[in-house]
Amino acid sequence: MPSYTAPTRDTRFIVNEVLDLASYGNLPGFEMVTPDVTDAVIDEGGKFCSEVLAPINQSGDQQGCIRHEDGSVTTPEGFKEAFEQFREAGWGTIAAPEEFGGQGMPHVLGFAMEEFISSANQAFGMYPGLTNGAISALIAKGSPEQKEMYLPKMISNEWTGTMNLTEPHCGTDLGMIRTKAEPQDDGSYSITGTKIFISAGEHDLADNIIHLVLAKTPGAPDSSKGISLFVVPKFLLDADGNPGERNGVVCGAIEHKMGIHANSTCVLNYDGAKGWMVGEENKGLAAMFIMMNAARLGVGIQGLSQAEVAYQNAVAYALDRRQGRALTGPAEPEAQADPIFVHPDVRRMLMDAKAFTEGMRALALWGGLLVDLTHKAQTEEERAEADMILGLMTPVIKGYGTDKGYEVATNMQQVFGGHGYIEEWGMSQFVRDARIAQIYEGTNGVQAMDLCGRKLAQNGGAAIQAFFKLVGEDIAAAKGDEVLGPLAEKLENALGEQQKATMWFMQNAMQNPNHLGAGAHHYMHIMGIVVLGLMWLRMAKVAQEKLGGSPDDKAFYEAKIATARYYMDRFVPDAGALRRKLESGADSMMALGEEAFATAA
Amino acid sequence: MPSYTAPTRDTRFIVNEVLDLASYGNLPGFEMVTPDVTDAVIDEGGKFCSEVLAPINQSGDQQGCIRHEDGSVTTPEGFKEAFEQFREAGWGTIAAPEEFGGQGMPHVLGFAMEEFISSANQAFGMYPGLTNGAISALIAKGSPEQKEMYLPKMISNEWTGTMNLTEPHCGTDLGMIRTKAEPQDDGSYSITGTKIFISAGEHDLADNIIHLVLAKTPGAPDSSKGISLFVVPKFLLDADGNPGERNGVVCGAIEHKMGIHANSTCVLNYDGAKGWMVGEENKGLAAMFIMMNAARLGVGIQGLSQAEVAYQNAVAYALDRRQGRALTGPAEPEAQADPIFVHPDVRRMLMDAKAFTEGMRALALWGGLLVDLTHKAQTEEERAEADMILGLMTPVIKGYGTDKGYEVATNMQQVFGGHGYIEEWGMSQFVRDARIAQIYEGTNGVQAMDLCGRKLAQNGGAAIQAFFKLVGEDIAAAKGDEVLGPLAEKLENALGEQQKATMWFMQNAMQNPNHLGAGAHHYMHIMGIVVLGLMWLRMAKVAQEKLGGSPDDKAFYEAKIATARYYMDRFVPDAGALRRKLESGADSMMALGEEAFATAA
Repeated sequence: MPSYTAPTRDTRFIVNEVLDLASYGNLPGFEMVTPDVTDAVIDEGGKFCSEVLAPINQSGDQQGCIRHEDGSVTTPEGFKEAFEQFREAGWGTIAAPEEFGGQGMPHVLGFAMEEFISSANQAFGMYPGLTNGAISALIAKGSPEQKEMYLPKMISNEWTGTMNLTEPHCGTDLGMIRTKAEPQDDGSYSITGTKIFISAGEHDLADNIIHLVLAKTPGAPDSSKGISLFVVPKFLLDADGNPGERNGVVCGAIEHKMGIHANSTCVLNYDGAKGWMVGEENKGLAAMFIMMNAARLGVGIQGLSQAEVAYQNAVAYALDRRQGRALTGPAEPEAQADPIFVHPDVRRMLMDAKAFTEGMRALALWGGLLVDLTHKAQTEEERAEADMILGLMTPVIKGYGTDKGYEVATNMQQVFGGHGYIEEWGMSQFVRDARIAQIYEGTNGVQAMDLCGRKLAQNGGAAIQAFFKLVGEDIAAAKGDEVLGPLAEKLENALGEQQKATMWFMQNAMQNPNHLGAGAHHYMHIMGIVVLGLMWLRMAKVAQEKLGGSPDDKAFYEAKIATARYYMDRFVPDAGALRRKLESGADSMMALGEEAFATAA
Repeated sequence: MPSYTAPTRDTRFIVNEVLDLASYGNLPGFEMVTPDVTDAVIDEGGKFCSEVLAPINQSGDQQGCIRHEDGSVTTPEGFKEAFEQFREAGWGTIAAPEEFGGQGMPHVLGFAMEEFISSANQAFGMYPGLTNGAISALIAKGSPEQKEMYLPKMISNEWTGTMNLTEPHCGTDLGMIRTKAEPQDDGSYSITGTKIFISAGEHDLADNIIHLVLAKTPGAPDSSKGISLFVVPKFLLDADGNPGERNGVVCGAIEHKMGIHANSTCVLNYDGAKGWMVGEENKGLAAMFIMMNAARLGVGIQGLSQAEVAYQNAVAYALDRRQGRALTGPAEPEAQADPIFVHPDVRRMLMDAKAFTEGMRALALWGGLLVDLTHKAQTEEERAEADMILGLMTPVIKGYGTDKGYEVATNMQQVFGGHGYIEEWGMSQFVRDARIAQIYEGTNGVQAMDLCGRKLAQNGGAAIQAFFKLVGEDIAAAKGDEVLGPLAEKLENALGEQQKATMWFMQNAMQNPNHLGAGAHHYMHIMGIVVLGLMWLRMAKVAQEKLGGSPDDKAFYEAKIATARYYMDRFVPDAGALRRKLESGADSMMALGEEAFATAA
C-alpha cells in the first residue's frame, strides 16, 4: 500500500523562511501566527492527514460511493468517521473568518493544509474543499440573514456545500443553462432543472448540504448576463435553523469516473426545490467567479498534491528495487544488483518531481499570501497590487500546476515499471486522480484563455508589467553573486522568452485573435516556467543565507541550491521552444476545415 | 460509446504512394502484393477491426477477465467468438512464412493490420500479438522438430503463445531470474518457478498455449549469460501432435491493472512443468531479444493506435459539442453556440494528434518495410543496411511512439472536458490502455539506453551516420522547392540539434557515462522529432507531386502539406530545448544523495 508523510519541513521553510510570514504580523489575523503557532498548525495538520486520511485513500478508490434507490449516497468505509475527526479537530476552519466561527488564520496556512489533505486523500478533500468554495460565495454575496443561517455550520463542517454550474449540454458556456428559478410569493424561488458533475453532491458525511445553484429567472437574457445564483439547502431549515423538511433536490445518479472514486459526483435533479437568490438578479456569473477563483487555486494545489505523494512513493521504490548496475560501476558490489535510484533516467524523473513539487509548493503558498494581502494589506494600493498579481497567478497555478502535476504523477508511476500499472501499488490511482484537475473548474484551455485573453490585457497590461518588474528585480539582485548569479542568468533567459511572447501577442493578436488562442496554452506554460524559476531563485537565496550561518540542517539548504540548479538546467530550456511555437501563430493550426479531420476509408 | 473506423485511405497512401510497395516487386513475397491485393487486405482488415473488434472494446474493459478457482480464465463476452472469426479469416497469418502455413506477405501489411487491431481493441490484439513474438523466437531459434510441432498451429492461431520473462524480483535485469530448468533423462527439462506479468498467460480462446520461458539450468552463470529459453506447452502434445496431458503450469492470479482489462495478465506458477530447450544453453537472452524486438515494434504501434482512436472520437465530439463562440466572431450565428472545433486550443490538440498519428503511421510502416528488407533485400549489403537502420528505429518507434501516443490520448480526452473523465464516453480507457505501452517490453527508459548506450556506438556509429545521411539527402533534394524548401529548412534545424547532441555525447560520455544516461531520454525524443519530420517531408513531397496532376482527392493531398507545415511549426522547436537539457549533463541531476530525497518532517 502506498504511504504519505506530510512534507512539513519544506512547508515550514517556505512559510517561515521564504515568505517570512512573521514579517506580516501587523496585518489582522497574522498577529496570532507566531512561528510557534505556524509550526504547530503545519505539524499537527500534516500528522492528521498522514495518519487519518491517507490510510483510507486506496480503499476509498476501490470501494467508491454507492447510490441507493432513494437517491441517498454512502461514502466508502471510514470516510464518515474521518470526516467527524476532521470536523472535531477544526481543520476546515483554519482560514475562515472568526465572525462566523472560523479561526481567521492566514490563507497561507489554509493552503498548506489543502496540499496535505489532497495528497493524503484527494477525493476526501473535495468534501470540505467544495464547501470552502460555497462559503466564499456566501461571504461575498450573501445577505446578512443568509450568512447567519448557513455560514457558521458550513465553516464548522457540520454542513457541507456544493457548486452547481454544469448541465448536460453546457459547461464552459454557462450562458446556455436551462435550470429555471420561478419567484414565489414568499420571496423564495422554485428551482427546476438538471445539474451534472456535482462534486460532493450527495453523501452521508454531514447533516445538511448547502447547494449553490446557477439558474435563470423568467425573462432573463439568454446569455451569461442572465444567470442568477441561488442557495438551495438539501434540508430546509426549521424555525431554529436546524435541518427540517427535505427539499426537492435528489441525486439521480453518480458518475463512473476514471478516478476520485470516493467523491460522489452526482447528477442532481431539481424539481421545484425551494431556493433563495444570493446577490443580485442576473449577476450570478460574478458570484460564480468568486467560488471559481478560490476553487481554481485549490485545484492547482491538487496538481502539486498528487505529484508529491506519487514522488514520495517513487523515491521509496527506487531505493528498494534492485535492477542492473550503475553506469559508473557497481554502487553496491556485494548485492546482486544496485537500487534503481543509481540510474540517471530514474534520477531524472525523481529530480523533475522534486524540482516541480518544491517550486510549486512555494508558488501555491505565495498564492495563499496574495489572497491574504488582497483582503488584509494595509493600503488600498497594496491590496490592488496583490489582487492584480493573484489574478495573473490563478490560471497559472491551476493550469500549469495541474498539467505538470499529471506529468509528474505519470513519471513517478513510470519509476515502478510494470508494478506501476498494477492497482495494488497505488500509483495508478495517483495518476487517475491527478487527471481530473486538468479538467474541472475550467479546463486548462479555459485557464490559458483567462490568462491571455483577459488578464494580460487588463488595465493596459499593468499586471504583466508588474510581474516582469517583480521577476526582474529578483534577477538584478542576484546577478554577480557566485551562487545565485548563474541561476539568475538562466531565469533571465526564460523571462526574456516570456517578454518576447508577450510582445508577439501584442503585435499580432489584434489583427487576428486566433493568434492569441493558438498560443495561449504555450504562454501559460512559459509563465509557469518563469514563476517557478522565480520561486527557485528566492528559495536558493534564503538557502544561501542560511548556509552562511552554518545551520543544523545544512544538507537541507544545500539540496535547495542543487535543486535550483537542476531546475534552471532542465525546466528553463522549454521556454524558448514554447515561444517559438507560439510565434508560429494560428495559420498552420487553423488551415484545415472539418472535412480534413474525417477518417477517410 | 466510442467508435472506430480504420484510416484505410491514409494507410494506402503510405503503403502505395510513400513507400511505393509495388516497386519492391522483385523481392520474395512482394510479387503477390500488387496494389489491388494491398488495398483489399487493408480495406478488409480495417473493416474486420471496426466491425468485429471495436464493438467489444469497452465491454471488455468493463468486464475484464475472470480467473476461476481451478486457475482457468474466462475472457470477456464476445472475445471467444471474435477470436474464432479472427482465426477463420486468417488475420493472424498475413506476414507469417508460407512454409508454416502463413501467407508470406510483407510485414508492412502485417504492421498496418496491427495498428487497426490495437486501435479497435488493444487488449484483444495482445492475444495474437504475443503469439507473434513467440513465433519469431521459434522461427529463429527452434529446432526443426519444434518448428514442425508448434509453428503451424500458432500461425493459424489455433494455439496462442506467450513470453515469460519477468519474475517478482526482476524485470529489466533478467540475469537475476530464479526459475530453474532441471534436465530430465528424456531430453526435456523440468521447469519450476514463478513468472509474473504474463500477458495472455491463460485464457479460453485457444486449444493450447505455448509458453516461451526463460530459466536457468543447474550451475548456469549467475548473470544474463546464464539464462536459457524453453518451450513449455500448457497441454503436452500427444503422439499425433494434439493437446493431451495438462502440463504443470497454472495461473495463480490475474493482476488488477489500470487498463487492458480484457487481456489476462497472469502470475504463472511452474511446478515441474515439462519444457524443451529452444536454441543453445545459456543463449536465452539472444533468443529473447528476437521476441523483444518484434514485440517492441508492435508496442510502438500501440502508441499510434490509441492516439488514433482517441483522435477520431475527439474530432467527432469537437464537431458536435457547442460551447462559446469563435474568437473571430460567431461561426454559426443562427445556433446558440459554435462547435468547440472553432476554438484554437481545441484545434491545437486535434492538429497535434493529426500530425503525430499520420507521421507515426508512416514511421511504423517504414519500420515494417525495414523488417522485410532485413530478411529479403537482394544483397547482403542492403540487408545489413536495413538491419542497422531498423536497430536504430526500434527504440524510437517504441519509446517516442508510446510517450507521444499517451500524450495525444490524454489530450484527446481533454477535448471532451468533464465528459472525458466519465468512463461511459470511452476516452479514459484509451488513456489507461495507452499507458501500459510506455512500460512493457522494456520501459521507455530502457529504450532510451538501448538507443544511446548500444545503438549509437555500434560499429563506430555507422548506423547513426547512415541515418544522418538519409535525412540529409531528403533535405538537400527538397531545398529550393517553393513548398518543400521551407519544410526542409525547419527539419534541417532539428537534424542539426540531433547532430549537436550526438557530438556532445561523443565528447562527454566516455569521461562520465552518466552524461549519456542523463540525456538518453531527451535524445530519443529529439530523434523521434527528426524521423517524424523526415516522414512528413516525404509525405509532403508525394502530395505535391500528386497535386501537380490534379488528383480526384485533391483535399487529401492539400491536407498533407498543411499538416506537414503544422508539424514543422509545432513539433520541431522542441528539439532545441531537448538538446540544451541534454547538454546540461549529469552534474545537477546526480548531485544529490538519497538522504536529500527523504521527506523531512
